[in-house]
Amino acid sequence: MSISFDDIDYLAVNTIRFLAVDAVEKAKSGHPGMPMGMALPAYVLWTRFLVHDPAWPQWPDRDRFVLSAGHGSMLLYALLHLSGYDLSLEDLKAFRQWGSHTPGHPERDPARGIETTTGPLGQGFGNGVGMAIAERMLAARFNRPGLPIVDHRVFGIVSDGDLMEGISSEAASLAGHLGLGRLTYLYDDNRITIEGSTDLAFSEDVTARFRAYGWQVLEVDGLDPEAIAQALEEACRQEERPTLIRCRTHLAYGSPHKQDDPEAHGAPLGEEEARLTKANLGWPLEPSFWVPPEVRERFRVLLRRGAEARQAWEARMADYRARYPQEAAEWDRVQARRLPPGWDEALPSFAPDPKGVATRSASGTVLNALAARVPELVGGSADLAPSNMTYLKGHGDIRRGDFRGRNFHFGVREHAMGTILNGLALHGGLRPYGGTFLVFSDYMRPSIRMAAMMRLPVVYVFTHDSIFVGEDGPTHQPVEHLAALRAIPHLTVVRPADANEVAEAWRLALEWEEGPVALILSRQPVPTLDRTTLAPASGLRRGAYVLQEARDPHLLLLASGSEVGVALGAAEVLAREGIRARVVSFPSWELFERQPEGYRREVLPPDLPVRLAIEAGVRQGWDRYVGSQGDVLAIEGRFGASAPWRVLAEQYGFTPDKAAARARALLARLG
Amino acid sequence: MSISFDDIDYLAVNTIRFLAVDAVEKAKSGHPGMPMGMALPAYVLWTRFLVHDPAWPQWPDRDRFVLSAGHGSMLLYALLHLSGYDLSLEDLKAFRQWGSHTPGHPERDPARGIETTTGPLGQGFGNGVGMAIAERMLAARFNRPGLPIVDHRVFGIVSDGDLMEGISSEAASLAGHLGLGRLTYLYDDNRITIEGSTDLAFSEDVTARFRAYGWQVLEVDGLDPEAIAQALEEACRQEERPTLIRCRTHLAYGSPHKQDDPEAHGAPLGEEEARLTKANLGWPLEPSFWVPPEVRERFRVLLRRGAEARQAWEARMADYRARYPQEAAEWDRVQARRLPPGWDEALPSFAPDPKGVATRSASGTVLNALAARVPELVGGSADLAPSNMTYLKGHGDIRRGDFRGRNFHFGVREHAMGTILNGLALHGGLRPYGGTFLVFSDYMRPSIRMAAMMRLPVVYVFTHDSIFVGEDGPTHQPVEHLAALRAIPHLTVVRPADANEVAEAWRLALEWEEGPVALILSRQPVPTLDRTTLAPASGLRRGAYVLQEARDPHLLLLASGSEVGVALGAAEVLAREGIRARVVSFPSWELFERQPEGYRREVLPPDLPVRLAIEAGVRQGWDRYVGSQGDVLAIEGRFGASAPWRVLAEQYGFTPDKAAARARALLARLG
Repeated sequence: MSISFDDIDYLAVNTIRFLAVDAVEKAKSGHPGMPMGMALPAYVLWTRFLVHDPAWPQWPDRDRFVLSAGHGSMLLYALLHLSGYDLSLEDLKAFRQWGSHTPGHPERDPARGIETTTGPLGQGFGNGVGMAIAERMLAARFNRPGLPIVDHRVFGIVSDGDLMEGISSEAASLAGHLGLGRLTYLYDDNRITIEGSTDLAFSEDVTARFRAYGWQVLEVDGLDPEAIAQALEEACRQEERPTLIRCRTHLAYGSPHKQDDPEAHGAPLGEEEARLTKANLGWPLEPSFWVPPEVRERFRVLLRRGAEARQAWEARMADYRARYPQEAAEWDRVQARRLPPGWDEALPSFAPDPKGVATRSASGTVLNALAARVPELVGGSADLAPSNMTYLKGHGDIRRGDFRGRNFHFGVREHAMGTILNGLALHGGLRPYGGTFLVFSDYMRPSIRMAAMMRLPVVYVFTHDSIFVGEDGPTHQPVEHLAALRAIPHLTVVRPADANEVAEAWRLALEWEEGPVALILSRQPVPTLDRTTLAPASGLRRGAYVLQEARDPHLLLLASGSEVGVALGAAEVLAREGIRARVVSFPSWELFERQPEGYRREVLPPDLPVRLAIEAGVRQGWDRYVGSQGDVLAIEGRFGASAPWRVLAEQYGFTPDKAAARARALLARLG
Repeated sequence: MSISFDDIDYLAVNTIRFLAVDAVEKAKSGHPGMPMGMALPAYVLWTRFLVHDPAWPQWPDRDRFVLSAGHGSMLLYALLHLSGYDLSLEDLKAFRQWGSHTPGHPERDPARGIETTTGPLGQGFGNGVGMAIAERMLAARFNRPGLPIVDHRVFGIVSDGDLMEGISSEAASLAGHLGLGRLTYLYDDNRITIEGSTDLAFSEDVTARFRAYGWQVLEVDGLDPEAIAQALEEACRQEERPTLIRCRTHLAYGSPHKQDDPEAHGAPLGEEEARLTKANLGWPLEPSFWVPPEVRERFRVLLRRGAEARQAWEARMADYRARYPQEAAEWDRVQARRLPPGWDEALPSFAPDPKGVATRSASGTVLNALAARVPELVGGSADLAPSNMTYLKGHGDIRRGDFRGRNFHFGVREHAMGTILNGLALHGGLRPYGGTFLVFSDYMRPSIRMAAMMRLPVVYVFTHDSIFVGEDGPTHQPVEHLAALRAIPHLTVVRPADANEVAEAWRLALEWEEGPVALILSRQPVPTLDRTTLAPASGLRRGAYVLQEARDPHLLLLASGSEVGVALGAAEVLAREGIRARVVSFPSWELFERQPEGYRREVLPPDLPVRLAIEAGVRQGWDRYVGSQGDVLAIEGRFGASAPWRVLAEQYGFTPDKAAARARALLARLG
């Protein structure tokens, strides 16, 4: 493709550069170097290739743009402003200020064209992979002959830092494996990192590495619009492989003293140098935040392409609605993130069974029952599906060239899984879940945080949730992970006590609109509780509920997950001695904290301070519920150990007898 | 190199296979497939190349062996047993049992030849990189012409899973960058993962990828001893690049029905299949745990090589001691992990200053002062040295071909940094530290966990420790990270309040022998407190101390880090109203928990229940210290925001006035 690239285009590129420079100067904080270096490739992409329409920012078939190098946020804000999104010059002037629409790193704001929150390196890279998978999956589900209502691409900008992070290696390998031809990243190869030249730490052959992953790699001069356009065109032609376009660029391009200087990465150029740079590139020194009218006009004209594409899509969609009303209704439903009518009728209920099943097994049953009614439910595991029980039987795998299936094989790549789940959720139209052992939630924690920050509807299936993993030993036994996950704002952690609480937990997970949900499930069997004598499992929704009441109780026993059975057993032991214990099933702190105070005081009456919490994890945080006079049977000051799980239960004190002894001691201490 | 490989050698290889099979059968749990597939390459390595001597397992110049694929632990245990380490047949029979020396995954036990704890994939890969760097660094420091007292290699076994994890991509890139010719990994290319064939998720060209990182890659048939030996020899000849030897192997080699079957990865073969496998490989069905005497003899003979090497080294060392007594004394000192005499005299003390400095800046000053006296102190940052203030000025960088320096450039690779720090600490002779932003501790969390589990003397320098990062916004502002780190057993988290507490924190970090220490440091300036009127900063060692006493106090104010200044300010505001507040500086929960109860009750008197904790992070865990009647000024139910930090202090309530208001409300509520 040959593009005509004239003086106004160059003016537009400089406009982007100096909006970034001026905003960073005004904020006295920010990252000018990247926008200055990548302005030209980004401009070519946005005006000649990216199919989008500011008139409808959330048009479902728009191309997605991901600024993985989120520190270059002003590049994105400048492009959004010039394209006509709801981001004014005043917004740009409020860069990095309290309450502004232009925070230091892009924060997801789809109404303004910001597809995802980025900044922690590598996360955006993986989000784009997820989006590109979602596109193929929705295309496979919804497109009909001659009516491709899903037919878009994912573009992004990635930096050296993105490519150094392991998460992008994992995601790139999977993207190559799946042959995601709709995915194209511009690599800002400026050879500068914060500590200096990339030579200090990064001398690998990135091109060869990405080719090894199965990517197409193209190399261009980041100042050559023609070459950039040709590469983008080649990327769009290549439907079998993702493309990395390596753009040789210059950090802080145009700055007489700071071009290619690490200092220009994360600090303002300074008033004097900003002026010199404007002079150097022939830019008016005043006013700041200057946008030449012809540049605005150029954007308007070039973006017609997007508007036309959107209109064509609307016509196609109208046709689709007429010819495929049922599919169209389904399309509307998943786009609106509405669950299908009667979806939860599929939820199984489990008969009481003292032997019981592992909650991970119950989860597998529930998940498969739900999958039959909720087609947008898709997911997989980081190579632990047989253990996590996450496989949707009879629903096929997604694989290169065939995205009709619903099961993912993420490989041993928890972090990529996390960020791809985010990308799937960001894209819309799917409800993703992902599984691994709870202990390996650490490997994907930065992605969980991003999901929580964006309040994405992602479900985590974390099995093997305690030392009761058994023989695999401390490296595979979570001890601190419940506490660590509960600490993340907007993440809802649910640790069901038995199979019926698992069903309720999945119900909640699918209905929840406040952010991601982490299901914490046991490896070992737990009794399926007899709900004819105990409170119904629906109490799970309130976070904690009185599972077994005692008349005028002497104490409260609080427990989650597999320790609820221990608490019930302890209550029985104590009852024989005339000690009456109320047993509270406490699957979720976050849900409990949302209950009205009245309910919370009902479950945990302030006049009943004798409380013992039982959980096979660290104590941290339980003091809030047991109070100054309470006690916690937890795992303190040590990790787990390799041994059969029943042996560990004895050794760590998680048996009814030992819990009862602890309760007795507490009662004695408090008199 | 041509090795003679006779029937006894093949017998030895089968001995390894069946020790693994029998141990897993007996435990009814474990991973037989990998030891069966890798027995031959491992045997060739251990008997012909690995220089080690069971008579002195911790001989400093031994080759290091890392089983990164830790699930194949029985392979290692079998080799250790047969080599004559302190691991008996009884120990093998106790595989995966409580209190045994043969846990499910290898747990560091240097006296028995287990160099590092592995299991979480990719961690061992990175440990080996750290060990190989340590070898080069110590060689550069201690070797003298003709007297190479440091001259060893690092070998390891890695799996598909190891290579899929991002952490190994990061570590491999850095290993290639540094040209670690002493590092050789055998890659167990068995093409099977838990979910099935590696084709499901892993079709990248691993060979090309590692070549892109700058590695030598050799490919061999894992059943061909000659080829394996030649490849290992080539690896040892190659001093400029690390080597990956890709061994085409078969999971559960020899099992008639389970060879190449994912089921053989993590479950016993089963009694019948174990029998069939023995029959198939011509192995006696009885007894189990059979070791032919000629195999024992073969190991004894082949290991003479190691004993001779050790003796030669001892002779060399004696010569060294005679010719370089000072260097030899220094060698002994760092090997014993003793700090040099007078090391802490270098610790600066900081004059009171209301304007103050950021604790990260104070840390940079202290660290550089210490570096002058503690030559084993080495480290760096994940590309944030100028921000983390971790650079040791005048001490040079380590780089390819020149390891005399002390500064690392880890690149944007937090996870590799974490695992390499572990490798440096495991190797011995160095005291490693590593820095990044606190928020990115999430990226390296699995490695921090391993350091804690192994109680390694690693120091983390986590700066930018709160929302007061400011304009960079929520992606860069830790909120939950203090809680998340405090949850990890054996990790000591220290958040100093001012420059003098920073000096004390570093003193503690270097003296601490119980595990890793995480220093949590501010980006923004904090006042340097006037210790002539306030308690001395040495109180930091006790975790919490009364910084400012009040006669007959109405309430306690507890705070850490930058919020200590807020607490002091609040106390002043309250004092004007006649409300007397004791201010407790609370830099470390873990240190405080170790104090005798008497001290803890002195600092937090039980009869003073009116307590307000102030910390710019989540509330989780503080209830333990403020009690049922206390309150916590924390960040609850939200992340940070992008704005100047002083604005955030107002908005989130972390100012003296707002803290005082909160204290007043608490007093009012409690009457």
